[in-house]
Amino acid sequence: MSEKHLEIIPLGGMGEIGKNMFAFRYADEIMIVDGGLAFPDSHMPGIDLVIPRIDYLQQNASLIKGWVLTHGHEDHIGAIPYILPRLPRVPIYGAKLTLGLLKEKLSEFGVKEADLMLKEVTTDDRIKLSKYFTVDLFRMTHSIPDNSGMIIHTPVGRIVHTGDFKLEQHPTDGKPSHLSKLAQAGAEGALVLISDSTNAERPGQTTSEQEVASAIEKIVAQAKGRVFVTTFASHVHRVQNIVHIAEKHRRRVVMEGRSMVKYAQVAQNLGYLTLKDPLISTDEMGDLQDDQVLFMCTGSQGQPMSVLSRLAIGTHAKLSLKAGDTVILSSSPIPGNEEAVNAVINRLYSLGVDVYYPPTYKVHASGHGSQEELKMIFNLVNPRYFLPWHGEPRHQINHARLAQALPNPPKRIIVAQNGDIIRVNKDEFKIAGKVPAGDVYVDGLGVGDINDEILLDRRTMSEDGILIITAVLHPEPHVELVSRGFVRTNRDLENSIRSVALEVLEVGMREKRALEDIRDDMYSAVRKFVRKVTGRTPVLIPMLVD
Amino acid sequence: MSEKHLEIIPLGGMGEIGKNMFAFRYADEIMIVDGGLAFPDSHMPGIDLVIPRIDYLQQNASLIKGWVLTHGHEDHIGAIPYILPRLPRVPIYGAKLTLGLLKEKLSEFGVKEADLMLKEVTTDDRIKLSKYFTVDLFRMTHSIPDNSGMIIHTPVGRIVHTGDFKLEQHPTDGKPSHLSKLAQAGAEGALVLISDSTNAERPGQTTSEQEVASAIEKIVAQAKGRVFVTTFASHVHRVQNIVHIAEKHRRRVVMEGRSMVKYAQVAQNLGYLTLKDPLISTDEMGDLQDDQVLFMCTGSQGQPMSVLSRLAIGTHAKLSLKAGDTVILSSSPIPGNEEAVNAVINRLYSLGVDVYYPPTYKVHASGHGSQEELKMIFNLVNPRYFLPWHGEPRHQINHARLAQALPNPPKRIIVAQNGDIIRVNKDEFKIAGKVPAGDVYVDGLGVGDINDEILLDRRTMSEDGILIITAVLHPEPHVELVSRGFVRTNRDLENSIRSVALEVLEVGMREKRALEDIRDDMYSAVRKFVRKVTGRTPVLIPMLVD
Repeated sequence: MSEKHLEIIPLGGMGEIGKNMFAFRYADEIMIVDGGLAFPDSHMPGIDLVIPRIDYLQQNASLIKGWVLTHGHEDHIGAIPYILPRLPRVPIYGAKLTLGLLKEKLSEFGVKEADLMLKEVTTDDRIKLSKYFTVDLFRMTHSIPDNSGMIIHTPVGRIVHTGDFKLEQHPTDGKPSHLSKLAQAGAEGALVLISDSTNAERPGQTTSEQEVASAIEKIVAQAKGRVFVTTFASHVHRVQNIVHIAEKHRRRVVMEGRSMVKYAQVAQNLGYLTLKDPLISTDEMGDLQDDQVLFMCTGSQGQPMSVLSRLAIGTHAKLSLKAGDTVILSSSPIPGNEEAVNAVINRLYSLGVDVYYPPTYKVHASGHGSQEELKMIFNLVNPRYFLPWHGEPRHQINHARLAQALPNPPKRIIVAQNGDIIRVNKDEFKIAGKVPAGDVYVDGLGVGDINDEILLDRRTMSEDGILIITAVLHPEPHVELVSRGFVRTNRDLENSIRSVALEVLEVGMREKRALEDIRDDMYSAVRKFVRKVTGRTPVLIPMLVD
Repeated sequence: MSEKHLEIIPLGGMGEIGKNMFAFRYADEIMIVDGGLAFPDSHMPGIDLVIPRIDYLQQNASLIKGWVLTHGHEDHIGAIPYILPRLPRVPIYGAKLTLGLLKEKLSEFGVKEADLMLKEVTTDDRIKLSKYFTVDLFRMTHSIPDNSGMIIHTPVGRIVHTGDFKLEQHPTDGKPSHLSKLAQAGAEGALVLISDSTNAERPGQTTSEQEVASAIEKIVAQAKGRVFVTTFASHVHRVQNIVHIAEKHRRRVVMEGRSMVKYAQVAQNLGYLTLKDPLISTDEMGDLQDDQVLFMCTGSQGQPMSVLSRLAIGTHAKLSLKAGDTVILSSSPIPGNEEAVNAVINRLYSLGVDVYYPPTYKVHASGHGSQEELKMIFNLVNPRYFLPWHGEPRHQINHARLAQALPNPPKRIIVAQNGDIIRVNKDEFKIAGKVPAGDVYVDGLGVGDINDEILLDRRTMSEDGILIITAVLHPEPHVELVSRGFVRTNRDLENSIRSVALEVLEVGMREKRALEDIRDDMYSAVRKFVRKVTGRTPVLIPMLVD
């Protein structure tokens, strides 16, 4: 590659919301930004997580100079434990909370801190990463503390990367976005803006955390019984606000749920969450009166084994919900979880509980800026080129249109896909090639051992089940059937299928056909018969035992 | 039962949106209202449809006097073809379009009209159904023409059943809801109100069809290329409005997609849909200019094989979308279809098409009334008792709260479940028992041959796949493995699993254990081993071939 260009290579986060990861390359240097995971969609049954393909980084491992993290959300750091062992040891820069959460995660994978080069920075530090890359972090408000955007100084010019952000004017920690730095970069000249497209379709301004806190406080103030709240475990500001509300209304904060307790502990240890009284567990509730309890728990996405789901179904070992209890879902369903969350809400209603959830009640706000915020950032940075990021095509394209309609539109916009090599210098901004990119599935203990063919089998079996035909040739030809997920036991149907298979077997043996041919014939004959009488096409496995 | 009570027995439509069906019983007479289907949720993989259990009706078949249909939507008449053969032949009352759609449906099932007792009525007719039941239909506006609510005159008093409704002030066919009849029933005294809860959580008034038509017209007026529109096939008013818009802007209406064409034909034949020029098919488009085309098609729910999905994926045999085309989704996703619809929208964006969809654009409105409409109906009817219907618990309970907060709240509200026997007379309104109710699954050609255990197997296989171990005892003990949806071919893993199974087999044979015991041991040993090395628990089927 020519040394006169910078290459921006998104390995995740383009055309999707999730698994955010960038490689920036200039000459023989690569800088990585973030390393996030994505959650599986309904086409990936059984998959736990999705992480980015990193072939490009592995093939150019010796060029990697360092890794910069914008913040501690799973879609920005969640893939690191899987990726780290496959890349060389390089400095990893991140703010205190970000590294705290990363260390917690890595320790679960048995990685020792001594084996890492973690470099703690503040959200407004300058990182001299390598010869060609200097990074100026700037604080941006988001749904987790210690969140940064960055100005990447490169030989071709300044790249402004917003990171995830909303423009919160009432941040819980009293620290608004550090816009002056971003504005200064704009004034001095920004070559490319990379900006968060999540809410590019939402008009106006995203609701402030302060409004959310007021709505929750109103509900808590009126509640006569216990109050249960679920929210995103990582949303430390929200948790802090809820703790303040509990304290004001003389309720002890009980906390239950692995991820929520873990985040709260890390945040408390590092000074991001402060409480008058220590958090207590469900066991320690003792004889608190109902109106002295604010119970925070996991389950904002309707996950079947979460605390809130167990409370809603009535399978929680220690607590049962009752009329007079209040439940607040201070969260919205991540796309794909609507049905599960709806089921939990309906269960809660059926228990006679008072339930509050968005959008009917203003008890949640997004962590991403809406159209007016996106335009504001664009105008402040006033970039030559624009790269809408962190969004599906609908979000990227609407973000592009917003920018195009401003008084100083960019010279060029690229709606990129993962793996695109975006070549940029003062006179050029174009897709110059492609590196391998896509989904690596994590399932159980396996990383990458599930492929699309296996997922197709899973989906097919989930539609019509599976039918296994064991044909035994000796001493007497006979056929056994086993099925799962097909139809209810039906002797007549089983006998007819067996007859069809047996006939193929006997004809085949009489004609001394090859076993594979008999098997193929059996497959076709049974498939045709089953489809005709049941209207279904289960996965069919004929096995011949000689 | 005592003859002094009426029994209201919902067989579907309570605690759910779908499969609406009521039995009303007085003494030895039963009247049925509607017979709808529901669409499967994500816990029912492979299921095509869900219909109500009708054990109660079968057990009391001789008492059934007749069947009254409110309108022709699937969730009100879709189960009839499955239910009809299991019940005696009784009069079925419905309006022209409703019966037209039902006949179309029944003819697909091979039922002849001569074998039915179809009784066509108008939307405002009086039906003298039997000794104890007289029904006064009244027209209500909804997202299909020929929709009625009903006043059921019974010996204990008037039951007002709204049917599905919104209060549309600008109905496409010029026929507003016949509220005077409903108000008169209220003035004369209504014992029970049964009312549509679908939008009980939505404040205000549901958007009018007229506004939707304006929004669509604006888009069509500005479009330079072809315009593609998808909507609910049964929404004849919407289709009519779109046809008018096409005619005004000199575009020919092309229509594609089985259900859309079928509904349009029935509606045209019966005079509910009028066109200046005949509808044409994709083949007949000939050399129409791009700006002379308005293409209506199926696919509003992102169904994989629908016309719009094939256009979006690029697998349509005759047409490809291109930049300059406009696509309008005049529909919203039914819960559970959000992900599929989102995928289609993203595909369309990626093709460079201009895409319009709610809520970003006002190109769709619900067919159900919002809170102000529900309150208006309640106040007009002013019932003694209230039965919120057509909703999940969240909708029923919010509807109950709305009624409770009005100046003349009902004496009693029952938030019922399917199968409840609601006993009612002047002094009583209570749940007095339960009849069997629930879901019957329709899958392929089978009705009721799929149960929850089979669905559980399907879900388990979709999570972790299936592993079949065939252990052959003679002449030489050996083990074969077949898997589907488990993990990528991995010789090492297969060999280790085989060894584990073979060891169990050899030990068992040496110790001359019973085959069932060997099989059980093999199941446990392999399951434990697989879980340990892969973290997964596929469905495991050990088969011993002696």
